[in-house]
Amino acid sequence: MKIDINREEKTPVYIQIANQIRHQIETGEIPEGQRLPSERKLADFLGVNRTTVLNAYSTLKSEGILGSFVGNGTVVQGAAISRTEESQRISAEPVWNQLLSRYAGRFDSGLVKELLELASRSDVISFATGIAAPDSGPIEILNDLEEALLEKANIRALLHSPTEGFLSLRRAMCAVMQKRGVYCTADEVMLLAGSQQGIDLAARILIDPGDIVVIEEPTYFPAIQVFKTAGARIMTVPVDENGMKVDILEQLLHRYRPKLIYTIPTYQNPTGTEMSLERRKRLITLAKQFNVVILEDDAYGDLCYEGSQLPLLKALDDSGYVVYLSTFSKNVYSGLRLGWLTADKRIIKEFSMAKQLMDLHSSSLAQWIIERFVVSGGLDTHLKRVCVEYKDRRDVMLLALTRYAPKGMIWNKPRGGYYVWCQLPQGLSADRLVAKAAEYKVSFIPGTPFFCTARSDAFIRLNFTYAPINRIEEGIKLLCKAMKELLNENHNDASDHVVEVNPII
Amino acid sequence: MKIDINREEKTPVYIQIANQIRHQIETGEIPEGQRLPSERKLADFLGVNRTTVLNAYSTLKSEGILGSFVGNGTVVQGAAISRTEESQRISAEPVWNQLLSRYAGRFDSGLVKELLELASRSDVISFATGIAAPDSGPIEILNDLEEALLEKANIRALLHSPTEGFLSLRRAMCAVMQKRGVYCTADEVMLLAGSQQGIDLAARILIDPGDIVVIEEPTYFPAIQVFKTAGARIMTVPVDENGMKVDILEQLLHRYRPKLIYTIPTYQNPTGTEMSLERRKRLITLAKQFNVVILEDDAYGDLCYEGSQLPLLKALDDSGYVVYLSTFSKNVYSGLRLGWLTADKRIIKEFSMAKQLMDLHSSSLAQWIIERFVVSGGLDTHLKRVCVEYKDRRDVMLLALTRYAPKGMIWNKPRGGYYVWCQLPQGLSADRLVAKAAEYKVSFIPGTPFFCTARSDAFIRLNFTYAPINRIEEGIKLLCKAMKELLNENHNDASDHVVEVNPII
Repeated sequence: MKIDINREEKTPVYIQIANQIRHQIETGEIPEGQRLPSERKLADFLGVNRTTVLNAYSTLKSEGILGSFVGNGTVVQGAAISRTEESQRISAEPVWNQLLSRYAGRFDSGLVKELLELASRSDVISFATGIAAPDSGPIEILNDLEEALLEKANIRALLHSPTEGFLSLRRAMCAVMQKRGVYCTADEVMLLAGSQQGIDLAARILIDPGDIVVIEEPTYFPAIQVFKTAGARIMTVPVDENGMKVDILEQLLHRYRPKLIYTIPTYQNPTGTEMSLERRKRLITLAKQFNVVILEDDAYGDLCYEGSQLPLLKALDDSGYVVYLSTFSKNVYSGLRLGWLTADKRIIKEFSMAKQLMDLHSSSLAQWIIERFVVSGGLDTHLKRVCVEYKDRRDVMLLALTRYAPKGMIWNKPRGGYYVWCQLPQGLSADRLVAKAAEYKVSFIPGTPFFCTARSDAFIRLNFTYAPINRIEEGIKLLCKAMKELLNENHNDASDHVVEVNPII
Repeated sequence: MKIDINREEKTPVYIQIANQIRHQIETGEIPEGQRLPSERKLADFLGVNRTTVLNAYSTLKSEGILGSFVGNGTVVQGAAISRTEESQRISAEPVWNQLLSRYAGRFDSGLVKELLELASRSDVISFATGIAAPDSGPIEILNDLEEALLEKANIRALLHSPTEGFLSLRRAMCAVMQKRGVYCTADEVMLLAGSQQGIDLAARILIDPGDIVVIEEPTYFPAIQVFKTAGARIMTVPVDENGMKVDILEQLLHRYRPKLIYTIPTYQNPTGTEMSLERRKRLITLAKQFNVVILEDDAYGDLCYEGSQLPLLKALDDSGYVVYLSTFSKNVYSGLRLGWLTADKRIIKEFSMAKQLMDLHSSSLAQWIIERFVVSGGLDTHLKRVCVEYKDRRDVMLLALTRYAPKGMIWNKPRGGYYVWCQLPQGLSADRLVAKAAEYKVSFIPGTPFFCTARSDAFIRLNFTYAPINRIEEGIKLLCKAMKELLNENHNDASDHVVEVNPII
C-alpha cells in the first residue's frame, strides 16, 4: 500500500489518503480481505495526525469498502467473502513450531547480543566486553581514504572480490603470517567476515550432528554455541596455567574419535593463559596420531606485552592438521568484520565453497582498507603502540586488584591479550556479583557461560582494554567493594540462619 | 619458524639464517621431526637467493641438525627418532574424507566463484555477470567520507553494531520499505551481509535434510545450491510470462507439505518476468492455507524502467508468511555486502540468533555508509538516474537483438531488472555457444545452471547493466555471429552425416 501526500494540494490530506487507498482497492492492488495498518502505525509513517487516518478509514468504511473486526483491525471488505471465512483467514499466522529447523531449535541464549548492547552504555565502567577502547584503534586507517578511493584503480573496493578475498590482500597476509612464524602461500589464506565466521564454517564443513568436538574449559562461549547448534557432542579438557591439559586430551582421544579440537593456545579467552611449548608439540603429534583437525583460534596472539611469543600451533604443524584462525577485530577495528584463515589449500577450498553460499565474499571495502594498512606498515606500527598501551592498562588493573581485592581472591597475570581471570573468594557467587556490581555501575562477565559441562560460579573475567585507563582503578575498587558487601551479607546470613553457604546457586 | 635478516650486519646472510634456525631447534621452538619449508619457498619469503637458503640448510645438515628424506624435504633430525618412525610420522596428512561433514559432501560446482572472476577480464564484452557497471555506481557515497568518519560520533562505523544492524539504519530502512508499499517497524527489519546471507539463513532456520523447498524454474542458481547443500528436497514450478505458475504450485501443495517457497516475483533472475498481481494474491492465500513460508527475493524490484511497479508480496501479506529479502548490491555497490530482511519480528529473532553465530553482525562501516546515503536522499536520486541509464542499455540490447538475431531466436522485453532471457533457435546448444562466443570475446551465462530438475540447454541469459553501453551492440552482433556459425556447422553436420541434431547435449 503506497500513499504519497501532497501538502501543496487543496484536497484535504484525509481525502488524499482515502482516494489512494480506494484506487488501490479498485485496481486490485490491495486485495479483498487484507488487513490495513493500524491508524496509529499509518499516521506515524505518513507523519500525519492519527485523526487524519481515522477520518480516511471512516470515509472508506462509510462507503462499505473497509470493515472493522475486533482483534483484526481494519480490513478490506469483499462482498464475496463471508465474515466467518474472513475472520478464519485473516487471523491465520504461520505455525512457526512446525516450520523451524532442528538447527534453530538448538539456539541458546542471546548473551553475545546482550554484550554487544552493553558495550554502548556510557554510565558504567565496563570490564565486560571483549573489545578495544574506541580511541585505541588506528584512526590513521582513514588517512586520505576518500582521495585514495576516488582513484580509478581503487573502485574494486566497492565491487565484488573473489570468495577467498582479494589476491593482493592474501599475498599481504602471507607476510603477516611469516612474522608469526608461518610460511604459507596465497592459496593457503582466505579472508573471512571476522573469526566467528571461521568457527561457524569449520562447524559446517566438519561437523555432522553427533560428531565429537573437543574444547578447552573454560573457553570462548560463542564457539560453544556454534558447535552445540551444529548438533555436535562436546567434550571438554580443562585448562591450567600451561593451557589445555593435553594428558587429559590424550585419554579422551584414546576412548573417542573427535573430529575437531578447538583451542585458543595464546592468551586464552577467558583465562589469559598460554599453552606451553611442550604441550603445543604434543598436541600436534596427537592430532596426527588420531586424525583430528585442530582449529587454532589466535585472536590475541600478537598482543604480547612481555617476553617473546611461543610458536603458533600452525608454525609447528608440518602436515596440515592445523586450521589457523585470526582476526583484525582485536588489533584494528571490530566493526570492519574482517578475519582470516590459514590452512592446507585442500581444506581452504572447502571453506571457500561454504563461504560462497553464505555471503559470496567479505566486504571489499574492509579488505581494501586492511590491505592498505598492512602493506604500508601501519599495522606493525600500530601493534607496537597498542602493546605498550594495553600493558599499562593491564598493570593498572593488576595493581588495583592487589590493593583492593578481598582476601581469598586469586587472579593471574596474563602476558598478553585482553583479560584477567579471577577466582572469587569462597562463598561468593559470580552471578550474584553481577547484580551487586551493577548497583555500583561496574560490569564484567561471570565465568559461568565459558563453562560447558562443569558448572562453575566461582570465576569472573575482567577485560582491561575497553574502560578508560583512568577509570580502571576506580572500577576495580567499586567491584571489590561490591564483593566485600556480598561477603558480609553471606557472613551475616550464615551466622543468622546457620546454613551452609553454597557457592553454586 | 621466525627469521629476521639484518643486511647491515657483517655476518653472511646464510649464516644468520642457519644460526636462527639452530637456535630455535636448540630451544625446542622448532620440534624434532618437523619439516622445514622448501629452499625455494623460504628463499621467496626472505627475499634472498635460493643458494643462500641451500647454504644455510647445508651447514645445518653437516652439523647433523637437519636431514633430508626423499619426498619429505628437509627435516629436523632427532637422535631419538628412527628413520622409519620419522618417515611414518611426517608423511601423515589429514584423512579428509573421514573428516568432512555431509554438508560439505553436498557442495556443487564453483560456478559463482568463476563468474566473480570472469567479471574482472577486460578483453571480453561481458553479458555474463549479474553486476552493475562499475561507473554506474553512486560514487557520491564517498563524498566527505573521511571528514565525516573523523567526527567523534561516527566512530561507531568502525566498532561493533547490534546483530540486526544499527537501530538508526533499521529505522531508515522502514522508510525505504514504505516507499515499496510495506509498513514495518524497526524490529521487523534486519541488516544482512548481502541477500545471499538471507537465503542461507532461511535454509538454516527452516530446513532440515529431507524438507521440501519449492523454487521457480529457472531461478537464481546460488539459491538452488544453498537449498541443495542444506539437504532439502527441491521441487520446481515453471515460470511463464506471468511469473511462477501458481496453479501448478497449488497441485504440488495439495500433494506435498513444503516448508518454504523461494520466489523472485519482480524482474526475475534469469527470466526478467514479473509475477502477475492475480498470482501474487493467490500465492499469499496458498501460503496461509498450507502454512508455508514465502521467501520473496527482491534484488531488482526498484529497477523499474516503465509503467508502475506491482505490489510486493510483502505488501500483500497481512499475516507474516512472507520473509522479504533485498540488497544494496544491485542498486548501490556489490562490494559493500549489505542487504536486508523484512519479516515478522518473531522470525527476525530466529534469523538474528543464527546470524550472531555466523558473523556477529554485518560490517558497521558499510551500514554507516548506506545509512548516510539513504537518509540524505542520495539513494532516491541515484535510483532515478540508474533507471534512465539501464533503460537505455536495455533498449540498445533489444534493438541489437532485433537487428542481428538469427531466425528462430526468441527473447523477452523486461520492464526492469538486469537481464534479457533468450531462447536459442532450434538445434543450438547454449553450452556449445559459450565456447564459440568466447572465440569472439563475448561472454554470457547459458541457461543450464538456472534449471534444477528440467534439463534445458536452449536458453541463455544476457545482462545489460555491466558492459559499456557503446559496446553492447558490438557484443550482440558478435554473439549472433557465433550463433550463426554454429547453426551453419549444425546444418553441414546434418547434411554430411545425416544424423538428427539433438538440442540437449
